[in-house]
Amino acid sequence: MKDMYQPVTQQDLDFFRNVMPGRVFSGEEISTDYDHDEMTEYGHAMPEAVLQALSAEEVSRVLAYCNEHRIPVTPRGAGTGLCGGCVPICGGIVLSTEKMNHVLEVDQENMTATLEPGVLLLEFPKALEGTGLFYPPDPGEKTATMGGNAMTNAGGMRAVRYGVTRDYILGMQIVLASGEILELGGKNVKTSSGYSLLDLMIGSEGTLGFLTRLTVKLIPEPRMNLSLLLPFDDVHRCIQAVPRLLNCGCDPTAVEFMERDVIACSETYLGKAFPDQSADAYLLLRLDGDSREALAPAMAKVTDLALEMGARDVLLADTDERKETIWNARGAFLEAIKGSTTTMDECDVVVPRSRIPDFLQHMVETGVKHHVRILSFGHAGDGNLHIYVCRDQLDEETWKRTVQQVMDELYRRARDLEGLVSGEHGIGHAKKAFLRESVGETQIRLMQGIRKVFDPNGILNPGKVCT
Amino acid sequence: MKDMYQPVTQQDLDFFRNVMPGRVFSGEEISTDYDHDEMTEYGHAMPEAVLQALSAEEVSRVLAYCNEHRIPVTPRGAGTGLCGGCVPICGGIVLSTEKMNHVLEVDQENMTATLEPGVLLLEFPKALEGTGLFYPPDPGEKTATMGGNAMTNAGGMRAVRYGVTRDYILGMQIVLASGEILELGGKNVKTSSGYSLLDLMIGSEGTLGFLTRLTVKLIPEPRMNLSLLLPFDDVHRCIQAVPRLLNCGCDPTAVEFMERDVIACSETYLGKAFPDQSADAYLLLRLDGDSREALAPAMAKVTDLALEMGARDVLLADTDERKETIWNARGAFLEAIKGSTTTMDECDVVVPRSRIPDFLQHMVETGVKHHVRILSFGHAGDGNLHIYVCRDQLDEETWKRTVQQVMDELYRRARDLEGLVSGEHGIGHAKKAFLRESVGETQIRLMQGIRKVFDPNGILNPGKVCT
Repeated sequence: MKDMYQPVTQQDLDFFRNVMPGRVFSGEEISTDYDHDEMTEYGHAMPEAVLQALSAEEVSRVLAYCNEHRIPVTPRGAGTGLCGGCVPICGGIVLSTEKMNHVLEVDQENMTATLEPGVLLLEFPKALEGTGLFYPPDPGEKTATMGGNAMTNAGGMRAVRYGVTRDYILGMQIVLASGEILELGGKNVKTSSGYSLLDLMIGSEGTLGFLTRLTVKLIPEPRMNLSLLLPFDDVHRCIQAVPRLLNCGCDPTAVEFMERDVIACSETYLGKAFPDQSADAYLLLRLDGDSREALAPAMAKVTDLALEMGARDVLLADTDERKETIWNARGAFLEAIKGSTTTMDECDVVVPRSRIPDFLQHMVETGVKHHVRILSFGHAGDGNLHIYVCRDQLDEETWKRTVQQVMDELYRRARDLEGLVSGEHGIGHAKKAFLRESVGETQIRLMQGIRKVFDPNGILNPGKVCT
Repeated sequence: MKDMYQPVTQQDLDFFRNVMPGRVFSGEEISTDYDHDEMTEYGHAMPEAVLQALSAEEVSRVLAYCNEHRIPVTPRGAGTGLCGGCVPICGGIVLSTEKMNHVLEVDQENMTATLEPGVLLLEFPKALEGTGLFYPPDPGEKTATMGGNAMTNAGGMRAVRYGVTRDYILGMQIVLASGEILELGGKNVKTSSGYSLLDLMIGSEGTLGFLTRLTVKLIPEPRMNLSLLLPFDDVHRCIQAVPRLLNCGCDPTAVEFMERDVIACSETYLGKAFPDQSADAYLLLRLDGDSREALAPAMAKVTDLALEMGARDVLLADTDERKETIWNARGAFLEAIKGSTTTMDECDVVVPRSRIPDFLQHMVETGVKHHVRILSFGHAGDGNLHIYVCRDQLDEETWKRTVQQVMDELYRRARDLEGLVSGEHGIGHAKKAFLRESVGETQIRLMQGIRKVFDPNGILNPGKVCT
């Protein structure tokens, strides 16, 4: 595939430096940070140049040039992806949004915010302070960019009640490979105005256009939230309680599932004991509302139902400190598992909620069968599990063989359960084969056809998603 | 454009009759119902044949045949559209889903329902009785089909709180022009698995594929709802209260706007007085919750804020009878306006909520300027207005000229206010020129390119959306 492209020449660099003075890096100047994302297991690839854009106009000039000269352009936000989506596996340039990090407007009347794609998820709430409004999507990785979240359709813990990133994007400014600048959507909260190019762009991982601005929907911030920790004797009972809890009308914001062995990793990693040691498996619920009184009926429902479904107890976290302890433990899972092993591979499947017990059962059996440690946690309320296959002390050859077999089996099982390859992390280059197997050749062909309409020369994030 | 296609021959009819015995109609057998939708103003066109499908397999055989023989296929549900989307303006066959009208499954554990596209919106709730679950989208036209709703991304009154049809579609079975049958999505509640072909299909008005099955998300039904009618002395104050009401945390399900002259049409049409006669303009709010007590804080907020914003009163409708009187009046607006004039044209623009006063002001001025009666009502909480330009006693020539000028001005103003052509009715063939003007040539070209990927011979609903 690399044959389709031209290497970056001195002349190209001169052009880029003219467009973005002081923000073009090549050769030795390039930090090795740019050769990978958070999953180094999927390999490293150095770009020929790194460009830090400041505006859509700069992006437009660079893309038009690269399009003409057949230079691959890999978009990058904070590089926190988990599928290799921002790794320049076909060479060319990395076009970074890290300096496009301004919140441009908070429109209280329309309840929207307009921002540059490089704004970090952890920075965005600061711009909303005092407005009484909030942005509900809550992916675990807070140092990710809002643009990256949009381009992978990131989910997060609050998706059960509030939905995923897609549900909050109202408008995008996109630069096409040709350099043309498009405005998709806007501040309108509904539309039936032709094909939804906006929805097509969301989750397309930078393969259809380069995101230079986004407008998101905000909602009034609930004034009160409570967390409830439900310990269960075994995983099976724990998971089986989920559909009933979702169905009871308590409208939970989050329903997270966690097991003792993952909690143990987190305790080691954080050096802090989890507030409950009594059980093998837990559900962690969050309820949002206007006041403690307003939440009382929902709390009562959850409590009664949880005990009926076999929870040993219902532990209320209503102080900030207690909430923090629990959610920090939850938030550290990925890093904690990473810290517990030499390297690992990840699977982010989503299945219909009722099939989670089946899938977890299969996962445990697969680990036993292949003599490999598999840890999992995830968004039980969404049917979205994060599964980590740990290398531990396996030698290179055994690891490669084992992980391939285990992944094949996990994805096959997900497909049999009518699940999908990725709930919220995306495809990048690491999950392409699994996507193809999951949706079939015709859908891949349609995606490729769409891609060609947007980017006839294939310069945008080549080698990703559906090549 | 008709030159691209072949007429339906006796041989074609024989093939169709073999695939769908007893459900193929041609010539005199075709009811004139099939030559128009609800907006007869946009013209009539008889199909050469009408086929009533029963299954995806039948649809697949017919599409593959029509694709090979270049016969246009216009999909049709209940024919209740408002933009001519189901009118066979290029001839060929109408492929009707009217007999594919079964709810196939209600899955209480996953909170989903799977149904055939011809199920009527008014029939669907019957399948959910006793489950405690409900389907939130609530378009005014209850005799529309669920498939038609999906293919136009219909909105409806409850969109303020619950979102539009797009937000509830989890899966689709689609037959491509080639006859291939695709499964998009499923029962999974989130996904980042490649381009969202599902979202692309939603709102595509049958131009990318033929919908043969859909899976929708359900949510626990709120046990209590209240309606509040807020009379205002003038339209301006009425509309200006909307952003504050949406922002106050009362989480309204619906925020509808209505004016005295439209209410008067409805009173005449229904032969029943509206329960309040005191004001020129009204907001109608609905609040959903678990109990009357749970709704008390929201009700108090709305009441205080409404009076502060200049409402003359806050009238509570809590009995079924009273609610019915008000919502029936609201539900009859379209038919009532239709009944009040000889013919009319419609505009379904959506603008950022804060721009509604600007738009309404412009609308009134446009009516005065062109000496034509313009009525409007709509989803104030969504920025989505339904505007009707009434012909009344204008002669043909004056009407044609006037309506063209008025529509041009209304759509231009919507564009200037960063609005979009259609909030929920779609484009069909009647709004194509306005869509093009609104989104520009590049976006139309992208849509056309996408369409060609799905339907290279252009047999699916030709002449619609983006040709």
